[in-house]
Amino acid sequence: MQELQKLYDRIVQRANINLRELEFDVNPYVQNLIPFEQMVKFYAFFGISPHHPLNFQFKHSNLAGSYFLGQCKITNSLLYKSDIRGDELKKKGDIFQYQNFEIPVSRDEEIYIQDSMLIKTLVHNYSHDPETLEEFFIRNTVAANYANIHGSPSDGSFVGSFATVDLTTMRDCVIGNFAYIQTGEISHLYIAPGTIWIRNPDEFNFVYKHPIDALNDYIYFKSGVPPRGIFIDFVEDRKEAFQRVFDVVNIEHSTPVPSSASLDRYAVNKPPTHIGENVLVSQRAYLQNAWLGKGANAQENCYIINSRLEGNNVTAHGAKIIGADLGTNVFVGFNSFLRGAAGKGLIIGKDSIIMPHTIIDVRVPLDIPEGHLVWGMIKSESDLTRHSIPIEDFSKINSSFTMGSMFFEGNGGSFIGAFRDRIHHILEANGAFFDGSEKKGHAQKNQFISFNTLQPYPEGKYKGLYPTISIKP
Amino acid sequence: MQELQKLYDRIVQRANINLRELEFDVNPYVQNLIPFEQMVKFYAFFGISPHHPLNFQFKHSNLAGSYFLGQCKITNSLLYKSDIRGDELKKKGDIFQYQNFEIPVSRDEEIYIQDSMLIKTLVHNYSHDPETLEEFFIRNTVAANYANIHGSPSDGSFVGSFATVDLTTMRDCVIGNFAYIQTGEISHLYIAPGTIWIRNPDEFNFVYKHPIDALNDYIYFKSGVPPRGIFIDFVEDRKEAFQRVFDVVNIEHSTPVPSSASLDRYAVNKPPTHIGENVLVSQRAYLQNAWLGKGANAQENCYIINSRLEGNNVTAHGAKIIGADLGTNVFVGFNSFLRGAAGKGLIIGKDSIIMPHTIIDVRVPLDIPEGHLVWGMIKSESDLTRHSIPIEDFSKINSSFTMGSMFFEGNGGSFIGAFRDRIHHILEANGAFFDGSEKKGHAQKNQFISFNTLQPYPEGKYKGLYPTISIKP
Repeated sequence: MQELQKLYDRIVQRANINLRELEFDVNPYVQNLIPFEQMVKFYAFFGISPHHPLNFQFKHSNLAGSYFLGQCKITNSLLYKSDIRGDELKKKGDIFQYQNFEIPVSRDEEIYIQDSMLIKTLVHNYSHDPETLEEFFIRNTVAANYANIHGSPSDGSFVGSFATVDLTTMRDCVIGNFAYIQTGEISHLYIAPGTIWIRNPDEFNFVYKHPIDALNDYIYFKSGVPPRGIFIDFVEDRKEAFQRVFDVVNIEHSTPVPSSASLDRYAVNKPPTHIGENVLVSQRAYLQNAWLGKGANAQENCYIINSRLEGNNVTAHGAKIIGADLGTNVFVGFNSFLRGAAGKGLIIGKDSIIMPHTIIDVRVPLDIPEGHLVWGMIKSESDLTRHSIPIEDFSKINSSFTMGSMFFEGNGGSFIGAFRDRIHHILEANGAFFDGSEKKGHAQKNQFISFNTLQPYPEGKYKGLYPTISIKP
Repeated sequence: MQELQKLYDRIVQRANINLRELEFDVNPYVQNLIPFEQMVKFYAFFGISPHHPLNFQFKHSNLAGSYFLGQCKITNSLLYKSDIRGDELKKKGDIFQYQNFEIPVSRDEEIYIQDSMLIKTLVHNYSHDPETLEEFFIRNTVAANYANIHGSPSDGSFVGSFATVDLTTMRDCVIGNFAYIQTGEISHLYIAPGTIWIRNPDEFNFVYKHPIDALNDYIYFKSGVPPRGIFIDFVEDRKEAFQRVFDVVNIEHSTPVPSSASLDRYAVNKPPTHIGENVLVSQRAYLQNAWLGKGANAQENCYIINSRLEGNNVTAHGAKIIGADLGTNVFVGFNSFLRGAAGKGLIIGKDSIIMPHTIIDVRVPLDIPEGHLVWGMIKSESDLTRHSIPIEDFSKINSSFTMGSMFFEGNGGSFIGAFRDRIHHILEANGAFFDGSEKKGHAQKNQFISFNTLQPYPEGKYKGLYPTISIKP
């Protein structure tokens, strides 16, 4: 156990050195978040299949409860119940398009996590940074419970609970709880909790801030206080269901799964559930009385409960949909929390975009018309009018626009276009458009993954540390 | 699956080339013994702990259901439900004593299995060959169900079902079913089924042959016919009990285990059972209504049912003890099958040595007096008189001696001395003499093993093959 403690100290110190300008000390945040004495009880696991790259390198790290797929290199790090997917990385020979540059990828990209501590964090997708095409690095970084590092290289940063950094390279930054950042490149910034910030220089800039008092009911996490609130309670209340999934070597789900779809062996599936054609249910997703139409997906850490998704729905990482009916093509962004009134109170019309980190939590029925852009915190009908707009109207903005505490400047059409392109890409990558032979995506490729478990040294000086492991084709 | 089939063909061909002089074709023996289509269903597993060396290298092999501990390098091989223990290997710097030679070990020994097919085979201990101190090799070798390759390097050989090769280097040999060989070095020999042959040049030579017709009831395995008989039925009848053990990630045995003892997580334990101090129950051992006194052990593939072992009992790999009471220090050798009459019909007095591959299968109560050497096939009281002798008497032989179909020449005292030394060494290695702080052995060291699982490619060209894996400290 000594080595594990030393590793923890080293990571904290390295993060703090990077964050000295912000006078930020990560230690009181995370010192009690990893149950050191229990670290030997959780196994790490990795998937192999003929459809995914395979290159795992684990060295001097704790990987308790973490999952790996694709290509990942982990050194001197603590990854506690994290989820690292290196199956969407760039390949040698690819051409990376960035503005007017066409940059050749010179070797297979890998996710490289070094001197970092990730707690229940998702790391996924390829790095969108044109400066480091072959390495999606996470260094000297500490990320708290249910953070989301998506295509975002990071150095010397702290990512708060339920925060998402998306397609952004960050250096020496602190990202507050439930903040969502998609800004290309940032450094030496403190981002307040609940900030939603999407920026494409020269094109558009979208900023919204969740009301902090209301947000604190959902997620509250400060120096010396472990994360708490509705989000944490929600996840903790369903933890038991995952226990069974991890306790057995093989699991048979009782729901029929079409040959074009996949329901992960590490997902929780509480019937009645319906899995349509081309549906992807990822590992650590949770389905309970859920109807998923053709091409819908439930990504990692999603919860879909008492809900119906008509088809081609993206439920991005960490999104929670409870008691809602979603029309076709409705997109629900990262970590959004949608909870209808008892029963089936929430209806979202087709083609609507629920922006990342949106909270819709209503006690009375609510009907969101089709084709709307929705953001922020919505707890009533009147909140909805101040946090949504027809996509058609938004597309016409070409200077600036304010609604409640949302501020937008730039080209609305370009903003919506970027969203639509991305949604299309996500559906494509996840296999929603599979036609029986072409256009395979994760839904089809994930059917044939075999899972392998790894455990740390159970005793002695290296207790809790994993041996040095290399796995290649 | 193509690659797996190619691998099978390659191994069979290599074995056959080596065995051409004996005109032996291994193919009709083994072609139906590995369920190719099921190979993706069984996981391989390996143990890590602070008390064992760690160096696993797996390459272009199928490892379905196999277990690895210590140091093992596997290349181009099919290891189906085998058990490879590299935790008793020689270490760099050790001095290997052989006759008048004192040979320094120049690097850590490893078990190296190459171009071989092992089916439910146990491979264990360090190589006793003074010519290849650092490599315990098994090459171009095919071993059938429940064979036992113990400290025995092998090249170009076929080992029959329930056969044991012990402390012997063999080249281009065929070892018949249930034969037991401990002869130092052999080549280009065909050993008939049921042969028990223990030879130490210049010291002694022990030869016994089981009556072949009677043996065929226990194990019958010929070209084109899968192994069958009482041994196979016995093992198959208890297969279900192991299923549960392999289906869950963690298992809690209900029997109390003293802090000086260990009951493996992959053993079957059917109470009432008693685990005394310093007891070792290895993985794939089977206990049912079994009482194990201080320092007793149940090694891999053992079955102890309705029996009581008073203490310091060795139950060597694959031995089966059913309905028997064993006094202290009774040794039961490899693959012996001891079955008393219904209930508690068989009593074996203290300090007796049941030689490897002994069959005692009686319908009426039988009492073996203390201090006896026992061998061969015993189905009645009168058989016992022709297959046993007081150890004291045997020790006095110094020329030659015949009893029934047993022939001995050489020094009886030296033969018994070698046995006694080895029994003492086995008890010591297994931790029977642990005094609370010193003399730790497997019973104490195996308490803290964490188990890790590996699975093969589930689909595609490489279906059934495992990726290239390296695991080091």
